[in-house]
Amino acid sequence: MRTLQVDLGERSYPIYIGGGLLSQAGDYFARHGLSAKSPVLIVTDDNVAPLHLKQVEESLRQAGYSTVVKIVPAGEKSKSLDVFEDVMTAAIEGGLDRKSAVVALGGGVVGDLAGFVAASYMRGVPFVQMPTTILAHDSSVGGKVAVNHRLAKNMIGAFYQPEMVLYDVDTLQTLPEREVRAGLAEVVKHGLIWDEAFTSWCREHTAELLALDPEALGYALTKGCEIKAHVVSRDERENGLRAILNLGHTIGHAIEAIAGYGEYLHGEAISIGMAAAALISVNRGADRSLYEETTSILRGFGLPTIMPEQLDEDKIIGAMMHDKKFKEQQLVFILPKSIGKVEIVSDVKVEEVRRVIRELKEEGQHV
Amino acid sequence: MRTLQVDLGERSYPIYIGGGLLSQAGDYFARHGLSAKSPVLIVTDDNVAPLHLKQVEESLRQAGYSTVVKIVPAGEKSKSLDVFEDVMTAAIEGGLDRKSAVVALGGGVVGDLAGFVAASYMRGVPFVQMPTTILAHDSSVGGKVAVNHRLAKNMIGAFYQPEMVLYDVDTLQTLPEREVRAGLAEVVKHGLIWDEAFTSWCREHTAELLALDPEALGYALTKGCEIKAHVVSRDERENGLRAILNLGHTIGHAIEAIAGYGEYLHGEAISIGMAAAALISVNRGADRSLYEETTSILRGFGLPTIMPEQLDEDKIIGAMMHDKKFKEQQLVFILPKSIGKVEIVSDVKVEEVRRVIRELKEEGQHV
Repeated sequence: MRTLQVDLGERSYPIYIGGGLLSQAGDYFARHGLSAKSPVLIVTDDNVAPLHLKQVEESLRQAGYSTVVKIVPAGEKSKSLDVFEDVMTAAIEGGLDRKSAVVALGGGVVGDLAGFVAASYMRGVPFVQMPTTILAHDSSVGGKVAVNHRLAKNMIGAFYQPEMVLYDVDTLQTLPEREVRAGLAEVVKHGLIWDEAFTSWCREHTAELLALDPEALGYALTKGCEIKAHVVSRDERENGLRAILNLGHTIGHAIEAIAGYGEYLHGEAISIGMAAAALISVNRGADRSLYEETTSILRGFGLPTIMPEQLDEDKIIGAMMHDKKFKEQQLVFILPKSIGKVEIVSDVKVEEVRRVIRELKEEGQHV
Repeated sequence: MRTLQVDLGERSYPIYIGGGLLSQAGDYFARHGLSAKSPVLIVTDDNVAPLHLKQVEESLRQAGYSTVVKIVPAGEKSKSLDVFEDVMTAAIEGGLDRKSAVVALGGGVVGDLAGFVAASYMRGVPFVQMPTTILAHDSSVGGKVAVNHRLAKNMIGAFYQPEMVLYDVDTLQTLPEREVRAGLAEVVKHGLIWDEAFTSWCREHTAELLALDPEALGYALTKGCEIKAHVVSRDERENGLRAILNLGHTIGHAIEAIAGYGEYLHGEAISIGMAAAALISVNRGADRSLYEETTSILRGFGLPTIMPEQLDEDKIIGAMMHDKKFKEQQLVFILPKSIGKVEIVSDVKVEEVRRVIRELKEEGQHV
């Protein structure tokens, strides 16, 4: 078992990464001083519930906690204000009080949704993350919680830190292959923005990671969380540095928004976004090898790097304009300088984005 | 013009109280460094808009700010997730970015709604309060923002501090009499929890306050804000002391909830709640004069102190159980010890509450 401390002053919290953690949930609750007099709300989805819910409930009950469960439909569509209201109803009807913990048992969608419930219920109650996907290694660090607005992703939310993250890697063994690949996109991203050596390690261990080798996976997730925690602890509320974590996200979010949430997995969309960012850098003078290396790693993980023909250029641009990163009427982009290094650039022209959209569509015709 | 500083470390902010402030809004924005490159969203209601909106918009425009306006229906019903979503839509469609300010121009409902929008839009943007009611002297201090859930009031929200509060007392001259009385209930409450001398002052100046005498009103609002700021700065997130501000609110919120939001004005409901709290104290051994004095002051302002016969006892108790103050399965009550002093009591029995509900219904039969 590895423990990683996310250093945020009085909002610091530990991430426990290892096998068998869900069946020890009750012990961890007690150790962290969570109230056993107040009901605990477990938020999960209908994919995860049959696999892992019983284990968590039993462990909590054995430690003296009463539980209320809310199962939401799996998928990005549950990150809506309607589902948010349903979870709030469950919390109220279940008698949750100000000392009650809200648990996110699931992937990024459940984490974002349950996290915003924890941040908002009675203006904030304790929050515990139990990620069950690879992608959630990313969303479980940093305290960004949110639901979507029909016009733009993650538009309604908060910065809200959990009490702890219990990352039981045993849960990853049941993931569908497409989700494994998409989840690894964020792992690769953490290498690309911060750590050339880790990027090389990812390239060399692609096969082990795709095969869910516990040792390789444990290392990669710890490393990914470490890089993210390192960046977040220096800039909790995204005033500067933290923006580098958005590599691939400006175009990625736009793709997710216009294709309809859920059509592309988040990791797939940001994979295309990272290819696009590398190509903008190349068009601005970086060596073409930057784009080739970036896309070669991503393709190694079976991730898409071309722009699907059916996605309309004007719609992509329009969706980008609604993105939170569109600050003071300027596009803010994270662009790679070399593998393991990025910069925050605020003078990217809309025309440059249009150009790479077209270029990445052409790439598709050659595949 | 009086300036009051609410002392909350890096979240400290000033409250400006005086005449003619709305027409200087633009200057205050510039002075506080709010971005003129980013559109400002003004949230107001259909009562306030015809009276004060133009003034604010013009002042902001003259200082170089572009504005987006969202007018919501007046009344508690606008503190819903549905209206919250509508305001978010206006923010997105208006192109608000992370440096955009959200302005609450109106009373407590608009302040709570717009404040939760500011807290949640892109995970938090600058917030400016421009209260136009007496009641809002209370809600504009302390950073509590929220919308209602159909099962309980203020259930969904955040602690979120404004950049500044511009309290233009000229706006109070247009208030309907019933709102004036209800607003003064919170002024009286601040005296009752903290300051015997100020309570006496309120009793002696009842007529001037009800006549909206600018000098008396300016003094009372500053004093009310001061007491609240004093308490909040010692306990921002309501871990202890801050709870005393809830005098009259446990039963008051229950009355609002079961009568249907909007049937009773907030100040009317907490007036009954304060009478009930005083009577619980008397039933626990305090001198009956505590109840007599409390209700005599409130009645002086034309506020209700008896329990309306049509409000069902079981329903009041049921609604109280859903209240945030119902912590770890215990009722937490704020009870007066003497005029100007209260205590936080966690062992009030449901039976004691049932008794005062009945007693306050009987009082009604003698009036």
